[in-house]
Amino acid sequence: MDSHEVVRLKVNFKTLEEFENFREYGQQELSMKEDLEANIVENDSESPFYGIYFGKKLVGRMSLYRTDKKFDRYFDPPQDYLELWKLEVLPGYQGKGIGKALVDYSKTEGLPVKTNARQRSDDFWLKQGFEPLTYQTDRDKGENPYVWLPKGVSEQKD
Amino acid sequence: MDSHEVVRLKVNFKTLEEFENFREYGQQELSMKEDLEANIVENDSESPFYGIYFGKKLVGRMSLYRTDKKFDRYFDPPQDYLELWKLEVLPGYQGKGIGKALVDYSKTEGLPVKTNARQRSDDFWLKQGFEPLTYQTDRDKGENPYVWLPKGVSEQKD
Repeated sequence: MDSHEVVRLKVNFKTLEEFENFREYGQQELSMKEDLEANIVENDSESPFYGIYFGKKLVGRMSLYRTDKKFDRYFDPPQDYLELWKLEVLPGYQGKGIGKALVDYSKTEGLPVKTNARQRSDDFWLKQGFEPLTYQTDRDKGENPYVWLPKGVSEQKD
Repeated sequence: MDSHEVVRLKVNFKTLEEFENFREYGQQELSMKEDLEANIVENDSESPFYGIYFGKKLVGRMSLYRTDKKFDRYFDPPQDYLELWKLEVLPGYQGKGIGKALVDYSKTEGLPVKTNARQRSDDFWLKQGFEPLTYQTDRDKGENPYVWLPKGVSEQKD
């Protein structure tokens, strides 16, 4: 398996153009574009996205959001954690360890990581060392939460 | 426009069978099925789903989850609010006011309502009296939040 360098993606028009190749183009991207056009964010400022390039082409990405422990309903003891969204590797670049490299990167801060696993992606998350939480209707609201627990951290009970 | 009766859906095998007609069949449904099979929930207990029937056929539904004010990042003053998810009307039954009837029902508790508008659904939500919030990266995490504000409630500022 190759090793892949994960880089934090900058907010600029080049990045936004690359994003159009990804299926899950949504509000975060639109907001970045509007802010850039309106000069609300500076060119090349940091985005919540991380990615892997093959040559000059962005072939995989994810977004990571840090949530304050005040809002933590997942971990015991309650603490800051990362939410991992929009993990996506372009067709033609899958099966090369790119998704794994991105997920591994999310663990390097030593914070718990939470994601909402898409249907039929459970095997992938288990392989990455994540585990499913016990479904709680009021908290999970239809999500399928999988978490990665650093040492000493466990699931928050209802 | 017809008037449509909105009913709270029960957890039972008949409801779960109806749900299979809907596109967004996910973790909430699977969890209900498992709980029912394992006798963790009683047959005909209340679900987070509300729906509209045409005769015996479920043709529209949504889920409503109440979030405690402790976790409110949307409204001022902070308060309990409803999250509206999975609003869906079956093909062939659209354009008859079924979606509107469901959304109207969500307002009857007098609590603020928050949803995550799908792309290109903005017009629909504006017509229902909802308004878009100012996008906040850390709070919204790629969502496109639209809210309905009861009198005296405004948007929570960062």
